[in-house]
Amino acid sequence: MSDNAKADGGTSDDTYTASVVGGTGFTGGELLRLLAGHPNFEVVQATSRSNVNKTVGRTHPNLRDLDLRFSDPDDLESVDVLFAATPHGVSMEAIDEFFEAADTVVDLSADFRLPDAAGYDEWYDGHVSPEYLDRAEYALPELNGENLPGAELIAGGGCNATATILGLKPLVDEGVLGPETGEVVVDVKVGSSEGGAGGGAASSHPERSGVVRPYAPTGHRHEAEIEAYLGLSVSFTVHAVDMVRGASATCHVFPEEPVSKRDLWGAYRGAYAEEPFMRIVSGGGGVYRYPEPKAVAGTNYGEVGFELDPGNRRIVVFSAIDNMMKGSAGQAVHATNLALGLPETAGLEFGGLHPVGSP
Amino acid sequence: MSDNAKADGGTSDDTYTASVVGGTGFTGGELLRLLAGHPNFEVVQATSRSNVNKTVGRTHPNLRDLDLRFSDPDDLESVDVLFAATPHGVSMEAIDEFFEAADTVVDLSADFRLPDAAGYDEWYDGHVSPEYLDRAEYALPELNGENLPGAELIAGGGCNATATILGLKPLVDEGVLGPETGEVVVDVKVGSSEGGAGGGAASSHPERSGVVRPYAPTGHRHEAEIEAYLGLSVSFTVHAVDMVRGASATCHVFPEEPVSKRDLWGAYRGAYAEEPFMRIVSGGGGVYRYPEPKAVAGTNYGEVGFELDPGNRRIVVFSAIDNMMKGSAGQAVHATNLALGLPETAGLEFGGLHPVGSP
Amino acid sequence: MSDNAKADGGTSDDTYTASVVGGTGFTGGELLRLLAGHPNFEVVQATSRSNVNKTVGRTHPNLRDLDLRFSDPDDLESVDVLFAATPHGVSMEAIDEFFEAADTVVDLSADFRLPDAAGYDEWYDGHVSPEYLDRAEYALPELNGENLPGAELIAGGGCNATATILGLKPLVDEGVLGPETGEVVVDVKVGSSEGGAGGGAASSHPERSGVVRPYAPTGHRHEAEIEAYLGLSVSFTVHAVDMVRGASATCHVFPEEPVSKRDLWGAYRGAYAEEPFMRIVSGGGGVYRYPEPKAVAGTNYGEVGFELDPGNRRIVVFSAIDNMMKGSAGQAVHATNLALGLPETAGLEFGGLHPVGSP
Amino acid sequence: MSDNAKADGGTSDDTYTASVVGGTGFTGGELLRLLAGHPNFEVVQATSRSNVNKTVGRTHPNLRDLDLRFSDPDDLESVDVLFAATPHGVSMEAIDEFFEAADTVVDLSADFRLPDAAGYDEWYDGHVSPEYLDRAEYALPELNGENLPGAELIAGGGCNATATILGLKPLVDEGVLGPETGEVVVDVKVGSSEGGAGGGAASSHPERSGVVRPYAPTGHRHEAEIEAYLGLSVSFTVHAVDMVRGASATCHVFPEEPVSKRDLWGAYRGAYAEEPFMRIVSGGGGVYRYPEPKAVAGTNYGEVGFELDPGNRRIVVFSAIDNMMKGSAGQAVHATNLALGLPETAGLEFGGLHPVGSP
Repeated sequence: MSDNAKADGGTSDDTYTASVVGGTGFTGGELLRLLAGHPNFEVVQATSRSNVNKTVGRTHPNLRDLDLRFSDPDDLESVDVLFAATPHGVSMEAIDEFFEAADTVVDLSADFRLPDAAGYDEWYDGHVSPEYLDRAEYALPELNGENLPGAELIAGGGCNATATILGLKPLVDEGVLGPETGEVVVDVKVGSSEGGAGGGAASSHPERSGVVRPYAPTGHRHEAEIEAYLGLSVSFTVHAVDMVRGASATCHVFPEEPVSKRDLWGAYRGAYAEEPFMRIVSGGGGVYRYPEPKAVAGTNYGEVGFELDPGNRRIVVFSAIDNMMKGSAGQAVHATNLALGLPETAGLEFGGLHPVGSP
Repeated sequence: MSDNAKADGGTSDDTYTASVVGGTGFTGGELLRLLAGHPNFEVVQATSRSNVNKTVGRTHPNLRDLDLRFSDPDDLESVDVLFAATPHGVSMEAIDEFFEAADTVVDLSADFRLPDAAGYDEWYDGHVSPEYLDRAEYALPELNGENLPGAELIAGGGCNATATILGLKPLVDEGVLGPETGEVVVDVKVGSSEGGAGGGAASSHPERSGVVRPYAPTGHRHEAEIEAYLGLSVSFTVHAVDMVRGASATCHVFPEEPVSKRDLWGAYRGAYAEEPFMRIVSGGGGVYRYPEPKAVAGTNYGEVGFELDPGNRRIVVFSAIDNMMKGSAGQAVHATNLALGLPETAGLEFGGLHPVGSP
Repeated sequence: MSDNAKADGGTSDDTYTASVVGGTGFTGGELLRLLAGHPNFEVVQATSRSNVNKTVGRTHPNLRDLDLRFSDPDDLESVDVLFAATPHGVSMEAIDEFFEAADTVVDLSADFRLPDAAGYDEWYDGHVSPEYLDRAEYALPELNGENLPGAELIAGGGCNATATILGLKPLVDEGVLGPETGEVVVDVKVGSSEGGAGGGAASSHPERSGVVRPYAPTGHRHEAEIEAYLGLSVSFTVHAVDMVRGASATCHVFPEEPVSKRDLWGAYRGAYAEEPFMRIVSGGGGVYRYPEPKAVAGTNYGEVGFELDPGNRRIVVFSAIDNMMKGSAGQAVHATNLALGLPETAGLEFGGLHPVGSP
Repeated sequence: MSDNAKADGGTSDDTYTASVVGGTGFTGGELLRLLAGHPNFEVVQATSRSNVNKTVGRTHPNLRDLDLRFSDPDDLESVDVLFAATPHGVSMEAIDEFFEAADTVVDLSADFRLPDAAGYDEWYDGHVSPEYLDRAEYALPELNGENLPGAELIAGGGCNATATILGLKPLVDEGVLGPETGEVVVDVKVGSSEGGAGGGAASSHPERSGVVRPYAPTGHRHEAEIEAYLGLSVSFTVHAVDMVRGASATCHVFPEEPVSKRDLWGAYRGAYAEEPFMRIVSGGGGVYRYPEPKAVAGTNYGEVGFELDPGNRRIVVFSAIDNMMKGSAGQAVHATNLALGLPETAGLEFGGLHPVGSP
C-alpha cells in the first residue's frame, strides 16, 4: 500500500515510544536497528531474560553506539508500541500483559498470524488466546494494507509465506490462479538466519556451510498462512542454502488458460507499481536478471519476476526478500508505519549494497 | 548396474592407455585425477591449447605430483581410450579424428547425448556428425548399464539431467510416473563449478557468492535428455546457489493414484539396491536426513530420497550428486569401466569427507 | 576529525552537483549509492565506456530505483565535485580535464596518494602529472582531517593502508612506535571485492571460494603509503580470504619499552574518542570481542582493538574496515564532507547489519 | 620421514584391529574414515557416550556404507591400536584403561603432546598421569619420524602447531632461525572444523560465516608445542576465517644474516624432498602460487613456501594443511604406519580435489 506521505515526500514529527520484547534474537536485533534509526520512534526498552543489564551492542555489534541495556521481560515499561520478537507460543501467553504495557502490539511470531483458532489446532498446538485473533491484522502491507491504519494488534507474516504470497498474489488477483487451478509448486530456499540465534548441530558452520538441505520437505506451517490469505493450497518445500539472510520462492504455476507475457506484466504492474518496496525484475541484461535475495539483502524491498514456459504451459514466478526484513522486522515496521499514520517508508529507506556476499 | 567384479572384490590387471582432450577445464582435471589414480589406466596425454608444455599441476593443484605436461590437441597420441572434455560442439567436429587416435571415445560434452539428430535441431544448433549418434551409448550406468559393455562411443550425461533421471527413474519403472501423469516440476540447485573454469562477470566471486540465482528459468537443454531417456516431459528450472561442487534436484510429482511410503521404498530399493554408487536417504535422525550434495561431494555416489505430502497428493523426490563426478567425470569413468569389462567401482572408491564446506 | 556539525546534530541545506567517472566498477557503484542517498549531493552524471546509455541499476541492482544512465566519459558535464573511480593511471592522465569539469576532484585511485613523485618512481611506473601532487590532500580524515577543509584535490587512501594506518596511528602518536622501533609485521586479510569487478581466473567463484591465499606476500604498494603517512616501514603481507567486503589488518608490534593495557586504552581513546566513525573493540564478552570486518560491513566505521602479549613483549593490534567504504568510497565521501564544510557524517549514517554473512 | 616401503611401492599384508574412542567428533569421524579405507586396519569399535547403538553413518554421512554402530566407551574391546579422539583431559584420566585394552595408544588430544609435566602446569591445568609423558612420542613424522617405529604411545600434534612447525623447521635446521634470532611472528588462519562438532553461538553459521575473527590473539596453547619442539618462542595469533577445513600459518621471520632465495630452496628441499606428504610451493604461474589450504583439503599433504622481502630483511614463510588431516587424524595414522612398520602412505593416498570450495 502506497500512501500519500511518500508520494509527496511527507514526514512526520510525531514520536512514539517503543519496546522490543525478545531483543537478543536476530529479529529482535533487527527491530532494534530499525527503530533506533527511525525518525518517529524512541526505543525505551529491550528485554532479554539471559542478558539483563548487558548492552545491546554486546549481542548485536552493529548497535554498539546504541546506549541501551537489556532489561527483564517481567518488568515491562509503558510504551506506545510493544514489538514482540519472541519464540512461537510466548505472545499468546503474554498478550494481556503486553496490552497492559502498550496501546499497540506488533507480534513477529506465528501466534496471531492465522485468521482463526482452527488453523492453530491443525498446524500448531492450539491457541490459548483465541479471542485476540479477530483483533489481529496480518502485517503484510501489499496484501492487507487497507486494514492496517489504526490496527492495535499486528501479526507479522512468516518469511517463507511472505515471499510466496508476494509472488503469487498478482496471479490470484487477475484470476490466473484460483482454488481450482491445479497444482502450484512452491520451492523455497532460505538462509541460516531463519534458524534463529540459538543454533544447534545442524546450524553449526561446519554442518551448515555449502548446503542444499531439504529441511521442510512437506508440511511446513507457512502453508497455512498462504492458504488463509491467498485462498490457495500450495505444494510447499523449503531448502536451506548457504546464505545468512534471504528467502527465495520459486513458484511453478500451471494456468488453465494460456497467459501472455504482456498479461503477466500487466498483472504484476497492476499489483505493485504503486508499492514503494516492490520491484519487478524479469529478464533484461547484466548479471541480475531475476529476483535474487542478494539484491535486496538488508533492505525492506521485495523483488518479483516471472518467465513463461509455453512448452509446459507453465509460469515460473520468482520472489526474493530478506527474511529478516521484508520477511519479518522490516515488514513489521512497515505495517506499524501504516497503523500509526506515519510516512510509509520511514526508517526503511536503506537500499542495499553491491557487491555483497550473503548479508 | 552392479557387476560381479565388485560383489566378489575382483580386480583386473589390464592396463589401458588414455588421453584427456581439454585437460585444463574442470571436468578435464577431474578426469585426470580419476585416471591417474585408477589401477587400470595410464594417462599418456592431456591436451590444452592455451597451456602447452605447462605442467598439469600448475592448473590443477591437487595433481602437483603428476608428472605430465599439457600438449597440443592437434597432435593426438594413439591410445586405447580418449576422453574428451571439450566445450559443446568440439567433439562433433573432431569425432573422426578422435577415432583415428583411439578405439574408444568417451565424450563428456552434449554432442552425442541425445538419441537422434532431431533433438540437436531443436535444442542445439544442429549436429554435424549425426551418423555417430546411433553408435553412442548414454553413459549413465543406472539407466543404460546393460548397453555399455563393449561400447565404443560413450556420451556422458548432463549433470542436471543425471540428478533428475536418478531421482525419477524408479517412479517411471514402477509406473507411478508416465507420459500421461501430469505436471512434474524439477527445481535444481547447482554449484559454481558447473559454469566451468572460464568464468565471467556472473561467475566472479563477489557476484556469485551467497546467491540464489535463477539462471535457467525455463528451456534448459537438459530437459531434452530427460525426455529422451525417461519418456517424460518435465517443468525444469535451475538455480545457482553458493557451493562449488554439487547438483541437487527436487522433483515434485503428482501421481494419479495414491502411493504409499512402502511403495516408494519398494520402488527405490528395487531400482538401486544393487547399484554400488546409489544410496537411499530418506528420513531418520541426525543432521543429514535427505540427500544433500555435501554428503556426496568429491565422490561418485548419488543419493536419492523422498517424502509423501498426502494433503497435496504429492511425492517430493530429492536427488543429490557431485556435478563434477556422478554428473560428469565420475559417470564417464564408471561407464568406461563397464565398457571395458573392468571392475565397476575401480578408481571411484573415494567416499567423501565430513565435515566439508562446499567441495 | 570530529566536527561540531555532528556534535550539535547540525545539517546543511547546501546542494552540490556531482559526477562519478568510472561508474560500473565496485567503488564507482558504492560512490553512486552514497551520493544518491546524501542530502547534500545531486548526482548528475555517471560514466562508463562500456555501458553507455544502460541504466545504473542494471550493473548495480541496489540502485534500480535510481533514474540514471551511464554516459560517455569523454563528455564530462560541469559539476561541483567530480569523483574518479577509475583504475590506477587514468586520473593522472585526465586530471586537467577533470578540473575543467569540476571545482573539486576526489580521486579514489592511487594516482595522487603519495606525497611526492619519488614514491611513484619507486612503487609505480612514474607519474605523468607530478605538479598536482602538492595540491592533493590524503583523504583519511582521522589522519589528515585538519587539512581537508577547502581541499580541491582529494586522494583516497588504499584500503589495506587505511586499515593499517588506523590501527597503528595511536601508537605512533604516543611514541610507542617510531622509525627506530624494530620490526612491525602487518598481516592483512581482504575480501574479493578488492579485486574489482573485472575478475579473472583467480577471482572466479570456484577458485576464490574458501581460500586463504597469499596474494601479495611482499612488496605491496600500500607499504609506500604507510611509510609516507606514519613514518614507519612495515613488513606487509596480504591474504585473500572468503568474504566479499572487508579488510582486516593484524599488526604485531614490539615496543622498546613495556606498555600497559591502560597506556593502550589511553592512546586509542586519545586518538579516536572524538572520531564519529571509529570504535575501540577490545575484549569484553559475547561473540564479537575484537574488530571484525563483519561488524562494520557496509558502513563507514572502523574498528580497532589490541591485546598485550607480555611473554613476547608484543602488542597485537587489530583493525577492521569495509574496504569499499572506510577503505574507499566512504572515506572519500567523508573527506568531501569535510572539504566542503558539510556535516561530517552526512550520507554515511548506515550502521550495518546483524547477523550478516560476508556483505 | 620417508621409508622404503613407499619408494619401492611396498605393501603389507598385516592387519591390525583398531578402535576409535570418541567417534562422534570431527576428528573421530576422520579417523574412522581413514581406518575404514586403510588396507592394514580393521575397525572393531567406535565409542560414543551420546550415540550408543546409532550407526556411524548417521553422524558422518560419508560413512553411510560402514557397517558399524557406536558403543559405550566404558566397554572397550581389546584391540591392537586404540585411537583416542576425546576432548583434552579425558585421555590422561583414562590412559591406564586404554593400555589395558590396547598395545598401542594414539591420542589426538593435547594430553601427551608436551615433553614434560611443567608444560602442563604452565599451559593447562596440570597433568594427572605425568608418568606417561616420557613414553609418549610426538606424532609429527617430519619432525619425529625416527622415534616413531615401535612407539606405544603416540601423541598427535596440534593443528596450528603442526602448520607452524612444518613451515619453520627447515629454517631451524639450517640455523637461519634459533633461540637468539629475534621476533618470529606467526599469524594463523583456521577453519570452523577446528572448533569441533559441539558448536556454540560463535560457531553458528550466521555468526561464523564470512569472518576474520581474532579468536586467540595471544597465549594460544600451541605456542608451548612450538617452543618445545623447535626450541623457539614465537609470537602467535590465530584468526578464524570462512572455511571448514584448513589451517594456514604465515610466519614472518627476520634472520640475523642475509639469506638468499637459493639458500631457502636448499633448506626446504633438504628438509622435505624425501617426505612423501610435503610439497614446496613457491612462486610460479597460475592461480595457486603459494601454499593454500584449499590445495590440500581432505588430504594428508602439507605445503610450504616462502618469499624474500629484502627491504625489510624478512622471510615470509607460508604453510598450509588440512587441520583434520595433516593437523590431526591423518598425522596420527601416518605416525601409526611408521610405528607399526607399515608402508608410510598406506590409507592416506587421497590427493584432493580441484576445484573445491572449502572442504
